[in-house]
Amino acid sequence: MRISELSAESGVAIPTIKYYLREGLLHQGEQMAATRADYDASHLRRLRLIRALLEVGRLPVASIKRIIEAVEDESLPIHRMLGVAHYAIAPKVEPESGDDWQAARAEVDALVAECGWNVGLDAPARDELTQTVLRMRQLGLSTDLSYYARTAQRLVVEQEIGTIPFDGPRDAAVEALVLGTVLYGKAFDALRRLAQESESARLLTPE
Amino acid sequence: MRISELSAESGVAIPTIKYYLREGLLHQGEQMAATRADYDASHLRRLRLIRALLEVGRLPVASIKRIIEAVEDESLPIHRMLGVAHYAIAPKVEPESGDDWQAARAEVDALVAECGWNVGLDAPARDELTQTVLRMRQLGLSTDLSYYARTAQRLVVEQEIGTIPFDGPRDAAVEALVLGTVLYGKAFDALRRLAQESESARLLTPE
Repeated sequence: MRISELSAESGVAIPTIKYYLREGLLHQGEQMAATRADYDASHLRRLRLIRALLEVGRLPVASIKRIIEAVEDESLPIHRMLGVAHYAIAPKVEPESGDDWQAARAEVDALVAECGWNVGLDAPARDELTQTVLRMRQLGLSTDLSYYARTAQRLVVEQEIGTIPFDGPRDAAVEALVLGTVLYGKAFDALRRLAQESESARLLTPE
Repeated sequence: MRISELSAESGVAIPTIKYYLREGLLHQGEQMAATRADYDASHLRRLRLIRALLEVGRLPVASIKRIIEAVEDESLPIHRMLGVAHYAIAPKVEPESGDDWQAARAEVDALVAECGWNVGLDAPARDELTQTVLRMRQLGLSTDLSYYARTAQRLVVEQEIGTIPFDGPRDAAVEALVLGTVLYGKAFDALRRLAQESESARLLTPE
């Protein structure tokens, strides 16, 4: 299809498609003439991937680029691919100096150990969780996250990991991992707020 | 305490504190002299609240301002306060035109009904979830979110709602609601990624 059809099908404006082509987020089409390239279903699918990460994941273009490079690098084992996606998704959290940060980090590491999780010491989610725990402590909120950790574990083991098509083509598994992490995470967060609204309405509004 | 002590205690720079005072995010201190105001524990606590919403919640200042106005508005019932927090937290999602959006929205509404949740039709999390479901459909991902919905429901009913001190002072309940929504949501998301990394390591890395 021509770029105009690709734009109509994907809902992405032509100048934006050209920007993705220049940035290497979208692979080039097949050159049919000096001013005409042909695009196919793989371009449409890639545009949907970019759009999902941009709009739902709210990731910066640089992070999306890192994810796409990893998707395209066929020498990268799938497990490493999940790591790349996690690094790209994670907000940049700088460890703070001082004992308070160290204490919060020790609490996070103890929780991970208690769960029996096999997670790299430099996994970005450790620092992210450390920052959250530190703010909870400063505000006097409970930092007992064992219920949350057990819930997350059950969700991943009973539901999420089974949906990844590890036995199919690499592309499909990798896309499912990346998109699953972002999209189902956002879905769960929205569902949690809906459940909160409902439960709070039940408890707090007069008959 | 003086502004310099408030800055040292909170870790927030003096120009930033002055900006929060000008913007009305932080209440004024008690004026002791023309150029000196006195700040107390309530200012320290407010700065920690702002910092948590800013750094962990990654909310824009305008959203934080809406939350703080609601916290300070004592005429606002606690249940409505949760709604204000949810509106302020939710990313702005514009409904898209077309049948695809309508179909995704119908799917979300059916899920909410199936869960028996009592949630406003204009709750921002409905549109947010609609956008996520629409992108999932476009990418061929499963939109069966019933496991996620049940998990969210259990988390809220068994764990979260019980931690809100409804019988104490209004301030404490309201702060716990707002902060709980943001901070425990972020904590869960980080824990889920840690569990994913661990489970994927178990399944995919060779012995």
